[in-house]
Amino acid sequence: MTVAAPSLPHPGPSDRFSFGLWTVGWQARDTFGDATRPPLDPVRAVHRLAELGAWGITFHDDDLVPPGSTVAEREATIARFRAALAETGLVVPMMTTNLFTHPVFKDGGFTSNDRAVRRYALRKVMRNLELAAELGAGTYVFWGGREGSEFEGAKDVQAALDRYREAIDTLAGWVRGQGWPIRFALEPKPNEPRGDILLPTVGHALAFIAGLEHADMVGVNPEVGHEQMAGLNYAHGVAQALWAGKLFHLDLNGQRSIKFDQDLVFGHGDLVNAFFLVDLLEHGAPGGGPAYDGPRHFDYKPSRTEDDEGVWDSAAANMRTYLLLKERAASYRADPAVAEAMEASGVTSLATPTLDPGETAADLRADTAAWEGFDADKAGERGYGFVRLNQLALEHLMGAR
Amino acid sequence: MTVAAPSLPHPGPSDRFSFGLWTVGWQARDTFGDATRPPLDPVRAVHRLAELGAWGITFHDDDLVPPGSTVAEREATIARFRAALAETGLVVPMMTTNLFTHPVFKDGGFTSNDRAVRRYALRKVMRNLELAAELGAGTYVFWGGREGSEFEGAKDVQAALDRYREAIDTLAGWVRGQGWPIRFALEPKPNEPRGDILLPTVGHALAFIAGLEHADMVGVNPEVGHEQMAGLNYAHGVAQALWAGKLFHLDLNGQRSIKFDQDLVFGHGDLVNAFFLVDLLEHGAPGGGPAYDGPRHFDYKPSRTEDDEGVWDSAAANMRTYLLLKERAASYRADPAVAEAMEASGVTSLATPTLDPGETAADLRADTAAWEGFDADKAGERGYGFVRLNQLALEHLMGAR
Amino acid sequence: MTVAAPSLPHPGPSDRFSFGLWTVGWQARDTFGDATRPPLDPVRAVHRLAELGAWGITFHDDDLVPPGSTVAEREATIARFRAALAETGLVVPMMTTNLFTHPVFKDGGFTSNDRAVRRYALRKVMRNLELAAELGAGTYVFWGGREGSEFEGAKDVQAALDRYREAIDTLAGWVRGQGWPIRFALEPKPNEPRGDILLPTVGHALAFIAGLEHADMVGVNPEVGHEQMAGLNYAHGVAQALWAGKLFHLDLNGQRSIKFDQDLVFGHGDLVNAFFLVDLLEHGAPGGGPAYDGPRHFDYKPSRTEDDEGVWDSAAANMRTYLLLKERAASYRADPAVAEAMEASGVTSLATPTLDPGETAADLRADTAAWEGFDADKAGERGYGFVRLNQLALEHLMGAR
Amino acid sequence: MTVAAPSLPHPGPSDRFSFGLWTVGWQARDTFGDATRPPLDPVRAVHRLAELGAWGITFHDDDLVPPGSTVAEREATIARFRAALAETGLVVPMMTTNLFTHPVFKDGGFTSNDRAVRRYALRKVMRNLELAAELGAGTYVFWGGREGSEFEGAKDVQAALDRYREAIDTLAGWVRGQGWPIRFALEPKPNEPRGDILLPTVGHALAFIAGLEHADMVGVNPEVGHEQMAGLNYAHGVAQALWAGKLFHLDLNGQRSIKFDQDLVFGHGDLVNAFFLVDLLEHGAPGGGPAYDGPRHFDYKPSRTEDDEGVWDSAAANMRTYLLLKERAASYRADPAVAEAMEASGVTSLATPTLDPGETAADLRADTAAWEGFDADKAGERGYGFVRLNQLALEHLMGAR
Repeated sequence: MTVAAPSLPHPGPSDRFSFGLWTVGWQARDTFGDATRPPLDPVRAVHRLAELGAWGITFHDDDLVPPGSTVAEREATIARFRAALAETGLVVPMMTTNLFTHPVFKDGGFTSNDRAVRRYALRKVMRNLELAAELGAGTYVFWGGREGSEFEGAKDVQAALDRYREAIDTLAGWVRGQGWPIRFALEPKPNEPRGDILLPTVGHALAFIAGLEHADMVGVNPEVGHEQMAGLNYAHGVAQALWAGKLFHLDLNGQRSIKFDQDLVFGHGDLVNAFFLVDLLEHGAPGGGPAYDGPRHFDYKPSRTEDDEGVWDSAAANMRTYLLLKERAASYRADPAVAEAMEASGVTSLATPTLDPGETAADLRADTAAWEGFDADKAGERGYGFVRLNQLALEHLMGAR
Repeated sequence: MTVAAPSLPHPGPSDRFSFGLWTVGWQARDTFGDATRPPLDPVRAVHRLAELGAWGITFHDDDLVPPGSTVAEREATIARFRAALAETGLVVPMMTTNLFTHPVFKDGGFTSNDRAVRRYALRKVMRNLELAAELGAGTYVFWGGREGSEFEGAKDVQAALDRYREAIDTLAGWVRGQGWPIRFALEPKPNEPRGDILLPTVGHALAFIAGLEHADMVGVNPEVGHEQMAGLNYAHGVAQALWAGKLFHLDLNGQRSIKFDQDLVFGHGDLVNAFFLVDLLEHGAPGGGPAYDGPRHFDYKPSRTEDDEGVWDSAAANMRTYLLLKERAASYRADPAVAEAMEASGVTSLATPTLDPGETAADLRADTAAWEGFDADKAGERGYGFVRLNQLALEHLMGAR
Repeated sequence: MTVAAPSLPHPGPSDRFSFGLWTVGWQARDTFGDATRPPLDPVRAVHRLAELGAWGITFHDDDLVPPGSTVAEREATIARFRAALAETGLVVPMMTTNLFTHPVFKDGGFTSNDRAVRRYALRKVMRNLELAAELGAGTYVFWGGREGSEFEGAKDVQAALDRYREAIDTLAGWVRGQGWPIRFALEPKPNEPRGDILLPTVGHALAFIAGLEHADMVGVNPEVGHEQMAGLNYAHGVAQALWAGKLFHLDLNGQRSIKFDQDLVFGHGDLVNAFFLVDLLEHGAPGGGPAYDGPRHFDYKPSRTEDDEGVWDSAAANMRTYLLLKERAASYRADPAVAEAMEASGVTSLATPTLDPGETAADLRADTAAWEGFDADKAGERGYGFVRLNQLALEHLMGAR
Repeated sequence: MTVAAPSLPHPGPSDRFSFGLWTVGWQARDTFGDATRPPLDPVRAVHRLAELGAWGITFHDDDLVPPGSTVAEREATIARFRAALAETGLVVPMMTTNLFTHPVFKDGGFTSNDRAVRRYALRKVMRNLELAAELGAGTYVFWGGREGSEFEGAKDVQAALDRYREAIDTLAGWVRGQGWPIRFALEPKPNEPRGDILLPTVGHALAFIAGLEHADMVGVNPEVGHEQMAGLNYAHGVAQALWAGKLFHLDLNGQRSIKFDQDLVFGHGDLVNAFFLVDLLEHGAPGGGPAYDGPRHFDYKPSRTEDDEGVWDSAAANMRTYLLLKERAASYRADPAVAEAMEASGVTSLATPTLDPGETAADLRADTAAWEGFDADKAGERGYGFVRLNQLALEHLMGAR
């Protein structure tokens, strides 16, 4: 990318930006077209990302070690990769398993209707978890992209959830038994490549986690585009995950409305939602709810129209956009006009409990001010000033305040 | 409706069909148009629904007792309604609160940014819960249609979830303390009337429930159209709720793709999904997962184009469609060709655990047949026959088998 | 709204901003809730909009003159309104007819299955066209919000299109015969309040227009949210309308993904698309395609949470956002780095015809450089740099360049 | 597929069912996974489809002749394919060009920002048109899947439409000049693989066609899933195309709501819409609007979970479903109860012009019965009985009447 204007922010390791190896390494093969870019050497990815200011790199087992490699080739590949990490200082904060590319997973991994496939899937994860432990990856992501169906009759969803739980329980127990400091993060998606995917949203994943044997070590890894493919508000989903103490990791990218999974650069989709997301991640909720302290991980695809230069331009664009949004969110939070507008809108008062300290339901039942003496028509006249507050946010986002 | 052909099924009380008073009573006022039908006397609704073969009637507080009624008027209204119930045998299996029509709730009830509104909302629910206890309604539904926002900055989602939890915990504790045999059911919706609604899907609601103080008495009330407005598979959502033991109630209607909330007659939307839903509700999962034993509740709106006759035709259409789907699902389940196809597709084998009895993760790790000796390429050649199975389902649905 | 920072742009008549009377006058009654605001006196609307810097006001017949008014009341209302216009200098650039609120239109106006309704609808339009001629409104909009159906069997679409054409042909011929300088603009919408609306997108409307008797005096009035409710790119739809010479008017507002019609403030939805829209409207296409010279018309709804002050804040927000986007689009177009990036991306070269001047298909067929000697693999390696160009746009949008 | 029950319909050549070679030949490689099926010999496809009862086969240039083939290989391949056609009696009613798989088309063919690519694309089409003429394909389809953009700034839409028109005009003129009896059919799609595709819906394509030099020889080829990906009613789009005399061809398949392009078996998506579509294609509009007399062409993808047997089962399922829907539509149209309900709903009366024979706008203006004497409130009470009519349709669809 042309040199950024002096006023533009530059990323560095302290920003904790990480990228999937499969992002910059995507060869741009899609359902309707062949690859437009040659394979990318993972070592080159490490070096280029480090130069651009990234802090971490993440990968699926098959991203680093081509399927079909011998044990010796695998070890050589890993050693060479580790050398690059050592040289650049890049870390591997997260790893994951590819349970979706090979035909054997066409009906899923953990929930395939074929039991032998389910067992194979577990072993594929175990093998890569051992590497994750070696490399010090603290988070292990599970994206069950093929766990699902096109037709309701083809999948017994209740049995599938049993098998899903069995898989996560088994793997979590095993990791815990090994003493590895690894947490799991489930990544929801509503559809594509399957017609309907199990655990389609942040909500479904959180609900599933609540019933796990080792629920405490399992959280979610929400992806911007995945929630937006269901028309859901990504910042709201992230907020519910934070509220539940389960935002273990996240995938930043861009999506434009409800359609196929676009995996655009972060901010190149719904920019307003991206602004409020960064505001939430950096500052936590206005009422004191927690911020996010994990990696800022980009899971995007450089557009199929881009060549190698375009790949690195797009990688840089993710970080630049995040930092610009961070600056604008900071100015939004610091603006007294915003504080005043939030107050007027009642945003900050929502942290106050509805009951008085010590008040019981029976007390409330007896409080005539709450019902008998409450003038609902009058109270209904209140203007909340939400549009004004949103306009202030947009003006900060546009750098106009 | 013209007399049904002799071959068409007729509903009766044993089918346990129930209707919201607000469904047949909808006056057809929408955002762009005035009411096209006069008010419906609730007592007439009771009689007409009973004649059509319904078993139950449900209502919001304000559906039965017009807002602004005096205490005496309210009592008279309730007494008259109870008399109609007694006369017809109709029951009231579910009740709920209107926290969305009055302007005072324009920013929500339990999560309004205005604390006085939150307290008022709690009291409004408490008042109607007392009536629910009197009338023997075993389920109390919470649809938080105004709990949400148009703009991320306008609502502190984490604080809102705190308030939501506080409200449900308070009310559940109070009901439990009173000794009333009432369970709560939360009804998710992704949007409309708010831009984004809190607890937007079955998943988000289930996750929320898991953190409640009285989680055991709180389940979900999924509505066909609400899940489909997020592009989600309704039968899958219901299956996850059943799996979690949380399908306390449900709302049957029709929706055609992702758009505004249509509330069509059940089956007049995605008919294939409706077929598989009825199959699941009636027979449970193929692998033994539970069926549904609660009311078959219709929450639909007679189209705005219909007059009084059309209202009752549409009410009857809901029940007729359900019964037809039930017949077709029964023939689907009983067909040996279907059983054979399910077996070939591995649908029934998914209930078998992935691990052998007593097998540990370490055992699996040591099983060379699962990894080292597993020929993934060969296993990937398996055809699952899902299309054939689905075609069988459609042919049963179309009455062709 | 709090006084804008000195750096913020202020609207004035030369910006040609216009508002529907039904926008600021919306009482915020929706399908699920009662009105939250009292009626707004149209004369007050004129004065307040003028004070805020607007240039024009538009209305449906029933917005200005309440249905049921006597002829004398109607005349008095109009006279009073004209006095306000004269006093403030506000103009009436566009008028339209309400063929959707009254129950008589529940199955549409021009395409109602009831012929008497169709005739009544034509007369309702004629009556208001006479007023439009009097008031000098140069554009007359047709939004056929009730022209459609919920069920395919309920509407003969081919017959409906015949009736639609008959209606527009009749009215256009009549206007032309009267010698009034009025053009028609059809406003598409995919759904809501009907399940499916006829002429659902800009494309369908343009195609319909091509077959009209007076096609030259009929164009389109695309609305941001309406196209986005179908997941379509609004700026693309506007570009096709401009290309066809048919962008007679437009409706600016905001929508967030595919859901019910939100009618948010302009820019409070997809901000990136709004940026490129303003760029197109103001500067035309990069390759010389025409810009837009008509009114900048806002068709939005002040959120239901707002009181009177919030109404005017939201009106001002529409104009402020437009002007900010205009500033940013100007800086985008003026930036040499953008010009260089556009050139590198081939954006500007698309205006060059594919054939050489005078070249025939046979000539091309004989040009070996185009096929036999063309190295497609090599040409396929080109990087288009689209992501970099988009990032430049976003940085201008965010005021960072 | 297991032998169909005796009562199930069997397809034959008179049904004029055709399949794309790329449908049964799809190797099931998608964005997230590798191919699960080996290549299919086109000659085998011809034989198997003929055995199943199909009448025609269609293809892209590259489906039949692998890219990179020598001229001699190409000729041999074509000769062998023609022999198979001769042997089986299968015809080639339609052909098309692949302008989307090769990297050179990553920014489109006719509207690529690279002029050399545009020229190459034209030549690729010309070459295959010569073959189409040889094989007697009467329809040539253009699906511009890569004509579009991810970012508004990357594509000058007005210039792109100029180039699109230039391309179609050039090719149409050339075909006409050659005297070939070939018509063109444009296939719209809203998105995927591009973020936004030009000519996104049937409407946009029809509008574009109206401005072409040889508009009379250009129509549309609407695909079920493509329109439904924009939430549009496919039967409505087809009706508008029929109304415009432009339904030159069509692509039947299945899609479930707004998401990625699923290409399911016909009827395996929105079954109700498929029923009304077949009703329209077979019987024309209730008011006399034309039916469709072209090929019943399936453009679907056998699910990635299927093996070779599943491929042919799925091919057969398309035809079986069509024939079942055709039977049910016939019984719907023949049912006196339906005729009575249509009449009551006013469906059939919509074919009656709104004006009387010879009546002018001025006459209508003077008809007091249409306005002054019209009781709109009374007329608004009419019930249209649409729900009842739709329920009759569903009962026919389900084989219950």
